[in-house]
Amino acid sequence: MAFLNDNFLKLKAGYLFPEIGRRVKAFCDANPEAAKRLIRCGIGDVTEPLPAAVITAMHKAVDEMAARETFKGYGPEQGYEWLRAAIAKNDFRDRGCVVADDEIFVSDGTKCDTGNILDILGAKNKIAISDPVYPVYVDTNVMAGHTGEANEAGTYAKLIYLPCKPSNGFIPEPPKKHADVIYLCSPNNPTGAAANRPQLEAWVKYALEHKSVILFDAAYEAYITDPDLPHSIYEIPGARDCAIEFRSCSKNGGFTGVRCAYTVIPKSLRVATKTGEMQLLHPLWLRRQTTKFNGVSYIVQRGAEALYSAEGKAQVRGLIEHYLGNAKVLREGARKAGLKVFGGVNAPYIWVRAPKGVTSWQVFDKILGEANVVITPGSGFGSKGEGYFRISAFNSRANAGEVALRLQDLKW
Amino acid sequence: MAFLNDNFLKLKAGYLFPEIGRRVKAFCDANPEAAKRLIRCGIGDVTEPLPAAVITAMHKAVDEMAARETFKGYGPEQGYEWLRAAIAKNDFRDRGCVVADDEIFVSDGTKCDTGNILDILGAKNKIAISDPVYPVYVDTNVMAGHTGEANEAGTYAKLIYLPCKPSNGFIPEPPKKHADVIYLCSPNNPTGAAANRPQLEAWVKYALEHKSVILFDAAYEAYITDPDLPHSIYEIPGARDCAIEFRSCSKNGGFTGVRCAYTVIPKSLRVATKTGEMQLLHPLWLRRQTTKFNGVSYIVQRGAEALYSAEGKAQVRGLIEHYLGNAKVLREGARKAGLKVFGGVNAPYIWVRAPKGVTSWQVFDKILGEANVVITPGSGFGSKGEGYFRISAFNSRANAGEVALRLQDLKW
Repeated sequence: MAFLNDNFLKLKAGYLFPEIGRRVKAFCDANPEAAKRLIRCGIGDVTEPLPAAVITAMHKAVDEMAARETFKGYGPEQGYEWLRAAIAKNDFRDRGCVVADDEIFVSDGTKCDTGNILDILGAKNKIAISDPVYPVYVDTNVMAGHTGEANEAGTYAKLIYLPCKPSNGFIPEPPKKHADVIYLCSPNNPTGAAANRPQLEAWVKYALEHKSVILFDAAYEAYITDPDLPHSIYEIPGARDCAIEFRSCSKNGGFTGVRCAYTVIPKSLRVATKTGEMQLLHPLWLRRQTTKFNGVSYIVQRGAEALYSAEGKAQVRGLIEHYLGNAKVLREGARKAGLKVFGGVNAPYIWVRAPKGVTSWQVFDKILGEANVVITPGSGFGSKGEGYFRISAFNSRANAGEVALRLQDLKW
Repeated sequence: MAFLNDNFLKLKAGYLFPEIGRRVKAFCDANPEAAKRLIRCGIGDVTEPLPAAVITAMHKAVDEMAARETFKGYGPEQGYEWLRAAIAKNDFRDRGCVVADDEIFVSDGTKCDTGNILDILGAKNKIAISDPVYPVYVDTNVMAGHTGEANEAGTYAKLIYLPCKPSNGFIPEPPKKHADVIYLCSPNNPTGAAANRPQLEAWVKYALEHKSVILFDAAYEAYITDPDLPHSIYEIPGARDCAIEFRSCSKNGGFTGVRCAYTVIPKSLRVATKTGEMQLLHPLWLRRQTTKFNGVSYIVQRGAEALYSAEGKAQVRGLIEHYLGNAKVLREGARKAGLKVFGGVNAPYIWVRAPKGVTSWQVFDKILGEANVVITPGSGFGSKGEGYFRISAFNSRANAGEVALRLQDLKW
């Protein structure tokens, strides 16, 4: 008799975004007129076309696949050398971080990597996760059996939750108790907060003292505008001995439908075997990727490479300015509507406190029903997200302006 | 102190193909003249350009990504409906199999899917695997902790090995003992054997009796030439209650560098919880994919869809005929060289018995050193592959002819 992985049965309801999708569809089916003026600021999905440099590079790559002499079959599972080199130089070494080309592992998504990384980590680790948080961190740990059951609020036993709240600027402090694996996301999804240098230094210090591993998700790095903020955890001394960094082409290059990301595993990062021997993680991830992954599409990798050309960089800057411009409009709109607003300066997300006594899903239903705008309920990101909602700045400027106005028309 | 997954430490040496890559590189570095005449028949990687229909479709998709109105961000994690519909109709319903569109899960590779499927299966399953076999099945089970340690021959404790040998035509019979999860690959990599209807019927009967799940890897389905052979396990009554099927665009459409595949999970397939309750697997895989995967590149999915157009189908047939023509040339060459030859009729692989007393890696080194041809040592696929080697038919016709001649020049 074949058995299933019972840990899946602990998962609460659907994954957040499919659940939002279902509610929006039900609303639109029941209200076809309102559906016509629907504006989506829910899922953090880009709306603007790919940079022209990427389009050119991908057309060229498609043509290469049409001729025997230039055709590409299997590539290296960890990514082509030219892409790994462009990433390591531009995203790290040019910023003064020590990262070698072969510490870059190209993949098809940060969502995949932050889930798959658990393959190489042991089952006995104590996991610390921010609250609120990108749901994938929690759900993949549930699936891997690293948690107990969830309570009514969706809080899982055995996880260490790190509360993010106005008083800590939504950046959690290291806990008093011991954690083996810590998820940090900066700039943060969903709160839009970005960690400063002292905050990251405190975390690296904690991780080195506790021999912990920090899983640092920097998918929104391109949105950092404050010149004092670190862009990579490797700007912090010691991080190469305790941190893995995840990056994505989704939110800078607009690759959500194209699929390219990467993970940095420093060759100095060690974790313990069951018997306490310290072992390098780099060869384990290499083995994991060569065994369970076949690399990213050649065409996509050529597209990603173009993001690092002079033309591509300028076009990416244009995209970021566009979305951050939207964020400013939305911040202003929500503030004028009398709401308390966070984020949206170093991140494409606005984190808004709901009026007192109104739950996140009540906000969701009201804004959908009355303003015909889709936002994301904060409670979908964890119990500490209750009473908040997230507005995504991924939209046209016209839509951002319209949403800002509609928010001001709402009566609470 | 963070812990690693100790199961990784049980893995023997490198994954087969990286190991071959290392040996070939060392030989070429040491013998630059011989390197110039090197012909690769090792890794099963296609060599011919993509079908013209795919090129056209991908150019069009790239152009769509260049304009706001047609830009595509995140798609459904399980694949676009139009692709799932084309697959279900053409690959299954047109052949009389009952498979619904939403039983198709589009992914970036069968290697990924056959590894990832273990996420939803429990840790206590008894796993049966053919020997020889595609190494990914074994290695992913080792990583997941489903095995004990390996012995000298690379045989892992706790796995049930199903010997494939000339006397059973390299198609294993159901074992006397109980297995919960069974990997079958037909047409087979590496032996080139394809299961007939009575053989698959015996397996479905076994799986239904034992409430087992068959993981049926049909990545080479397009190479079946014998009209009596089933193309899908769903041609066998009862298979919808016990089998998952894996398919790929790699070896028919030449997508090894493009990356697209799919997995079929019938909505009637149930496995047991720890307490013996039967539960559907379909919602678990949907949850796994929506949480840990973000879908295949839109551009790639449009390319895959083109494989199902009339033009695309004809072009795929042309590719298959080309590679099977190579297989015939290689079969003849190996036979004239006095070697005993299997496979290569319903599969792009020739499985060759080495001369008596010669090991697989000795054959590899001799053929590399003297004929400057890369083959795959049979022992890399399991202990029962010792004394055999695999020749891949993925090549130009000229190279296939040249390899056939060089094999005949070898003195054993």
